[in-house]
Amino acid sequence: MTGETVTVEADVFADGHDAIAAAVLFRHERARQWTTVAMTPLVNDRWRAEFPVTDLGRYLYTVEGWVDHFGTWSRQLAKRVAAGQDVKVELEVGARMVEAASQRANGAARDVNRLGALATALRAGKSEIDDGALALMRRYAERDVTPYGRTLEVLVEPVKARYSTWYEMFPRSAGNFKDVQKLLPKIAEMGFDVLYLPPIHPIGTTHRKGANNRPATPGEPGSPWAIGSEEGGHKSIHRELGTLDDFKNLVRAAGEQKIDVALDIALQCSPDHPYTREHPEWFKHRPDGSIQYAENPPKKYEDIYPFDFETDHWRELWLELLSIFTYWAEQGVRVFRVDNPHTKPFAFWEWAIAELRRAHPEVLLLSEAFTRPKVMYRLAKLGFSQSYTYFAWRHTAFELYQYFTELGQSPVREFFRPNLWPNTPDILTEYLQTGGRPAFQARLILAATLGASYGIYGPPYEALEGRPREHGSEEYLDSEKYQLRDWQPDDGMRELITIVNRIRHENPALQSDRGLRFHFAENEQLLAYTKTTPDNSNVILTVVNVDPHHTQRGMITLPLEELGIEGDRSYQAHELISGARYLWNGPRNYVEVSPFSMPGQIFRFRRRVRSEHDFEYFV
Amino acid sequence: MTGETVTVEADVFADGHDAIAAAVLFRHERARQWTTVAMTPLVNDRWRAEFPVTDLGRYLYTVEGWVDHFGTWSRQLAKRVAAGQDVKVELEVGARMVEAASQRANGAARDVNRLGALATALRAGKSEIDDGALALMRRYAERDVTPYGRTLEVLVEPVKARYSTWYEMFPRSAGNFKDVQKLLPKIAEMGFDVLYLPPIHPIGTTHRKGANNRPATPGEPGSPWAIGSEEGGHKSIHRELGTLDDFKNLVRAAGEQKIDVALDIALQCSPDHPYTREHPEWFKHRPDGSIQYAENPPKKYEDIYPFDFETDHWRELWLELLSIFTYWAEQGVRVFRVDNPHTKPFAFWEWAIAELRRAHPEVLLLSEAFTRPKVMYRLAKLGFSQSYTYFAWRHTAFELYQYFTELGQSPVREFFRPNLWPNTPDILTEYLQTGGRPAFQARLILAATLGASYGIYGPPYEALEGRPREHGSEEYLDSEKYQLRDWQPDDGMRELITIVNRIRHENPALQSDRGLRFHFAENEQLLAYTKTTPDNSNVILTVVNVDPHHTQRGMITLPLEELGIEGDRSYQAHELISGARYLWNGPRNYVEVSPFSMPGQIFRFRRRVRSEHDFEYFV
Repeated sequence: MTGETVTVEADVFADGHDAIAAAVLFRHERARQWTTVAMTPLVNDRWRAEFPVTDLGRYLYTVEGWVDHFGTWSRQLAKRVAAGQDVKVELEVGARMVEAASQRANGAARDVNRLGALATALRAGKSEIDDGALALMRRYAERDVTPYGRTLEVLVEPVKARYSTWYEMFPRSAGNFKDVQKLLPKIAEMGFDVLYLPPIHPIGTTHRKGANNRPATPGEPGSPWAIGSEEGGHKSIHRELGTLDDFKNLVRAAGEQKIDVALDIALQCSPDHPYTREHPEWFKHRPDGSIQYAENPPKKYEDIYPFDFETDHWRELWLELLSIFTYWAEQGVRVFRVDNPHTKPFAFWEWAIAELRRAHPEVLLLSEAFTRPKVMYRLAKLGFSQSYTYFAWRHTAFELYQYFTELGQSPVREFFRPNLWPNTPDILTEYLQTGGRPAFQARLILAATLGASYGIYGPPYEALEGRPREHGSEEYLDSEKYQLRDWQPDDGMRELITIVNRIRHENPALQSDRGLRFHFAENEQLLAYTKTTPDNSNVILTVVNVDPHHTQRGMITLPLEELGIEGDRSYQAHELISGARYLWNGPRNYVEVSPFSMPGQIFRFRRRVRSEHDFEYFV
Repeated sequence: MTGETVTVEADVFADGHDAIAAAVLFRHERARQWTTVAMTPLVNDRWRAEFPVTDLGRYLYTVEGWVDHFGTWSRQLAKRVAAGQDVKVELEVGARMVEAASQRANGAARDVNRLGALATALRAGKSEIDDGALALMRRYAERDVTPYGRTLEVLVEPVKARYSTWYEMFPRSAGNFKDVQKLLPKIAEMGFDVLYLPPIHPIGTTHRKGANNRPATPGEPGSPWAIGSEEGGHKSIHRELGTLDDFKNLVRAAGEQKIDVALDIALQCSPDHPYTREHPEWFKHRPDGSIQYAENPPKKYEDIYPFDFETDHWRELWLELLSIFTYWAEQGVRVFRVDNPHTKPFAFWEWAIAELRRAHPEVLLLSEAFTRPKVMYRLAKLGFSQSYTYFAWRHTAFELYQYFTELGQSPVREFFRPNLWPNTPDILTEYLQTGGRPAFQARLILAATLGASYGIYGPPYEALEGRPREHGSEEYLDSEKYQLRDWQPDDGMRELITIVNRIRHENPALQSDRGLRFHFAENEQLLAYTKTTPDNSNVILTVVNVDPHHTQRGMITLPLEELGIEGDRSYQAHELISGARYLWNGPRNYVEVSPFSMPGQIFRFRRRVRSEHDFEYFV
């Protein structure tokens, strides 16, 4: 993120006993000059340096090391002097090194003079080498550098790539873009900063799907993911949602509330998409001449045609697909949710994202790849800013502990940013189906505190909608994918969302995935974890009862010292949802979490501070 | 080692849902053809293959993956058939893939016929694809391979690089090479397979060191590491040790006892070495014109001149130094102990060892680099077969557990082979100085069972010599480095060495560093660990009391299942030093180890076997 620093560590060592030095060289991809930062030795031949990143885009960096001959000489000289040895010959050795350096400083008259004076002083018996002399010699010393040999890259993205709060809704259920615009104050008040809309394009009619995934009957609106009709494709807007100007007005109005409108880019076509007529060569054809529809045998999706990314005309296809992103970026869209990126070639994403970022370094891309971990990680490496996760299917305390421990480990955490969704239009988990209000509350608190980025498919979440299409299915009954819905939000749920997002906003520990630690709870239905800022100035403990049916209680053990809390004094645990304040003592404390009042608690620890007055207070 | 297999694992995955395949390609550095081994998927996109190594030297290997289009098609076909779908069009798709493959098989008439028959059968409605058809299609399928892009190397060394037992002695104390030859039967009987001799070259007289590191008085023999005199240098033999023929006789006689004679290569010169006169350009010169002697300020070693590896004449110098190794290899020497390799350039070793192995792939090199871990590891990567370690200074059970856990971890264990020495001519540890006979016994048992390779500086070890030059020093009193010694071996110590080496010889678990596991002992003075063969056919438990002054007792907990022992039956623990047999039950068993009888116990577990007779016996 801009404003952050990049920490670089390297093993730097040489044969022999010479003093060595090392540096990190870095530059922004658009800068021509490298900047050098000296590295500092830690222990066991490990060296470290940091450099600041101030601009969006790629930074290049590498490491180099060299033997510090003058440093070696001066270190040995000091030992000889301390041992009372005659150092006359040694001083002559040093004087010659200084003279050689002076040759290399021939442009800088002042430094040449200083080096000349140093050589003279050494020959006259001066055996204390001060820091000024060392610095001067470092500048002109012969530097026979050993380069690391590889240039590494770090991508700097907007802060929202790290910390974001998403709200998904089908604009057509609200009416059109103008109606959505009227909802913005409410969405902003709840604390969301990304408004994500499923595809807004014309919808095909061939094989159109109707309510509950049955063939459509006349008048049914169809799935927004069946993109394209006679009226247009990926760069067009569904007539009933409004005009391009309406859309741009919505984007602008959202921006005023600090909300980004996120578009859903699904690189696939309905059979009626203009591409299918204008560019049949971009699709696979079956021996009978028809275009190959999407399938996951034995399932068939005859309303969807996938692109053939390996067509002989792939160059034209890829350029056109890139132009979809570019087109919307030019209309002011900075956030894209990409549908099923893992079914398109890695090489396409690597190229397309780099090209898009070259023109629009501010874009943020969320990968919707619910697939194997290594494929998800690969997409992150190729340039996706964030990714959906398995969070929705991790329900027990132990599953959640395991999964977030895996995501928090290096190297995954260096490039993979999870975005946690308790529900989506495709995912209504059994837990939400059966757990009632406490399940919705618990999953919201978990998503919002385990992840610096999270999102909800909002209207049904607020409405506590838990009815599946059929037993054993994760599809919603009367899914909004195929029909309009009129949602009735639950006031209590809206209030909780508002409070939890405010807590995120006020506590920087919750705005990063770095400082997550799990803690031992003496009850396997309780999940306890802290998030902290690096300096421990903000320490947030969350305790969630994952059992939506019973009150659970137990002792929680905290590593007070690691959290920067003095172990021998009481400290205040301020529960931020209810506002209650508790005085805790020592590492073991009792918690009781009832799903009937609130299945999760979010504590901020306040440290006791000495004041100039006689009483104590907490900050 | 020859006869072993190399296991290769890789993450192999592709975008989309296609079936994929992967292979390892390998060849010996002298072979021209690559051999292909199919990889097998494990879980989570991890694939594995193994290949055998049969020749000494480097093997090259790499990985490649590709999409298996026909495999994907046949997998999907099976699903369609199972779902009762009409697959006429699909079979046509398959027939066309077969015809395309047939084009690529145009040389092989029989396969062309088989492919033609397959295409016909598909068009006729055959929807079961058998393994023969899949194999045929794999042979001729279009294989759009994604190569890993890097070729990796694995060095195959003689078995002795993994499992060796070293005995160090100063030949001059025995008399000459002929006298050493007479000692061979005794050394072989004790179970050693490497006889390591400190430098055997002429010794300089300038600044010669005498007894206890004082300036020599006339008649004192000098340190063997002050190499070179008027009589010759690194390719000459000290006159009093014998002739080159005497030496070759010793090497030959040792070979008959399966003992390798190891030479000590110390790349440094006495001031009297012929190189100093013939090649003064190979040394650093001080401003007063003298050659720079070795030093570690404020310590000076005026009897030693280091080479200047960075001299302008480095090519000639490096070639000459390589020729020292080559010369002795041509006299039949296969094992070299290299003195202080870390004070010479990494680049020199990388080049010199590769050149030496090109002509003599059978050589084994032991690195004597007591320096920082990363430098030791680097030397191993550059080609050293084995390395000295910090073992001598790890005394408590916890220190030993920690150190060997570190060495046993990947990647270190993949390239770094420790050789454990409880003593050397430079190292008489405080533990041996103060612990008496139990200390010598305990350290021998530890070295011989923790390490597949270990060695002792034999004569003083057998004599239980523990007197330091002065309090706080690790130097021997009257060190053999500077004077002749007449050692009186202790019969009990000799017997223990003989028994322990026989145990190593009879138990393959002790001949590798791979199967080491530490176990919980309820007494911090007891160190308990097992070594096992991969198939658990050989399971050795060693328990050492590291306290040389008191009897220690406690319960040891073993993970029986991991060791292949049935937990619900008693099993036999056969103590191999004493020959005692115990019947143990379950994972927790009592041990008592007295330093006054023997401070270590080595158990081999015997499993109970059902026989055709009525009684049970153990194997």
